[in-house]
Amino acid sequence: MTRALLLIDIQTGLDNPGWGARNNPDAESNAARLIAHFRAAGGPVIHIRHISTNPDSPLSPDAGGTGFKPEAMPGPGEAVFEKSVNSAFIGTGLEAHLRDAGIDSLVICGLTTPHCVSTTCRMAANLGFDVTLAHDACAAFADNADTGWRAGLPAMSADDVHAGAVSHLHGEFVNARATDDILTDPA
Amino acid sequence: MTRALLLIDIQTGLDNPGWGARNNPDAESNAARLIAHFRAAGGPVIHIRHISTNPDSPLSPDAGGTGFKPEAMPGPGEAVFEKSVNSAFIGTGLEAHLRDAGIDSLVICGLTTPHCVSTTCRMAANLGFDVTLAHDACAAFADNADTGWRAGLPAMSADDVHAGAVSHLHGEFVNARATDDILTDPA
Repeated sequence: MTRALLLIDIQTGLDNPGWGARNNPDAESNAARLIAHFRAAGGPVIHIRHISTNPDSPLSPDAGGTGFKPEAMPGPGEAVFEKSVNSAFIGTGLEAHLRDAGIDSLVICGLTTPHCVSTTCRMAANLGFDVTLAHDACAAFADNADTGWRAGLPAMSADDVHAGAVSHLHGEFVNARATDDILTDPA
Repeated sequence: MTRALLLIDIQTGLDNPGWGARNNPDAESNAARLIAHFRAAGGPVIHIRHISTNPDSPLSPDAGGTGFKPEAMPGPGEAVFEKSVNSAFIGTGLEAHLRDAGIDSLVICGLTTPHCVSTTCRMAANLGFDVTLAHDACAAFADNADTGWRAGLPAMSADDVHAGAVSHLHGEFVNARATDDILTDPA
């Protein structure tokens, strides 16, 4: 089994206060620990970058937030794929890259848990990849859950959104593990 | 805009008690109302059927639960696609069928909200289709959320799972609406 680290949208535009309250401030530092681990072991590190086509998004080129955060800067020779939708597999060469490189297993982390991370995990699993989700190297915003569709449904906290999203994935699409556990027992 | 009704996994195997507590017993009757509405209007009705490759699944051929429920029997000439993963777009001819038929808008409903419905909604939206989720023609099981990845995280009720899944989709991937609203104002 050849395993790669797949980092989703760890970009400065997601520091914009307009996204609302966030959980897990340690997501980026945990992602950095995974990056260091994969680099030390010679494992592939793959970066996904969101380039929004919506000019009002903090992740649009005009907004200046498409750059990577310092904890997740691509290293020399590491693959970077740009996407404009949630799934890193749609409109990109990611799947072909993974197949060509013989990669059949992924550790996925990044931003945000219920949207781009969840969608990419789901497609990865459904395309036949073995997926470990580094849940504490991900984070969610409260605004990622819009409860306006049902009268009386209260707003959800950022951690509720994160916990729900991971729980919907765990056991069905991914094995959700903590960064510490992945570092000490990668299997 | 040409809109189709896309029905996900409304199959007898999902009546198996092994799935645990379920919310929204009206999901199938609401799906039946949508089917009747689309048929009366001459709109396309498309059926997705899960054929599990896991012999222990109630949705495997051996288990005898792959048939459609009475409320969601395909009519003459209606398209049926079989899948073996969560997304109705992976390993099927669904996307090509929709493109060939000029369908650019979908009303999606079925089972289960956080797994096959959510995954199919996400891919449909990311592939460029306009998606309305008929949220009260969907249902979830408590067991669709596995909270075992975080110590101390309590189990989630079936309605919590459903509400979380719809809230993660609404406004990002879909417009989540009640069946009554779709029937009286399809736009």
